[in-house]
Amino acid sequence: MSIAMEDTKLGDASSDECCSLAAAPLQVAESERIAVKLKALADPMRLRVMSHVAAQGCESVCACDLVDVLGISQPTISHHMKKLVEAGLLTREQRGKWAHYTVVREAFTELRRFLTLD
Amino acid sequence: MSIAMEDTKLGDASSDECCSLAAAPLQVAESERIAVKLKALADPMRLRVMSHVAAQGCESVCACDLVDVLGISQPTISHHMKKLVEAGLLTREQRGKWAHYTVVREAFTELRRFLTLD
Repeated sequence: MSIAMEDTKLGDASSDECCSLAAAPLQVAESERIAVKLKALADPMRLRVMSHVAAQGCESVCACDLVDVLGISQPTISHHMKKLVEAGLLTREQRGKWAHYTVVREAFTELRRFLTLD
Repeated sequence: MSIAMEDTKLGDASSDECCSLAAAPLQVAESERIAVKLKALADPMRLRVMSHVAAQGCESVCACDLVDVLGISQPTISHHMKKLVEAGLLTREQRGKWAHYTVVREAFTELRRFLTLD
């Protein structure tokens, strides 16, 4: 896959790259940045929250809608949203009583690049 | 992205899909399965280990090589490898003194499908 080939700092350029993850072995700083995002995602409820926000397309989603769809309380939603915003996976905008959230595309692009195995 | 389009069980096929994560909002069982894999990956050293294993292509990698490349002890490597194997991200095969590890492609395909935002 082209994304994996942009950077060819592989230890052995002649190796079979069909299973390569990322463009090159991760360095410490990059691994720490990705780990923060994965840790925020590595929770079943936050994964469901993220999938609901993202299923709305590029538009922001009101926390009030998530309360209804997922059937969990507003404080619980707020707790999970805070973790996702802190990890840079969502942005938050207050509109009146409710916060609205939008997916940070670049964050997912980075994660997907790491996971590319083609 | 073609991988994301294989399954078209979108809740609302007419919605703007440019930011959609996964084919549809995650159900509980799927979210739990993905969370286990993400949790195993959400550690800087394990991310570096995974990227080194995968950078070797589809071939298995000896734990002895990881000890050299990453400059960490054999027990530490074993600890991290155990977590990655338990999460279904690597398979392990013992060959004499050393274990050899191989990437489980299907596990990364599932994670990548979830993260697809195109």
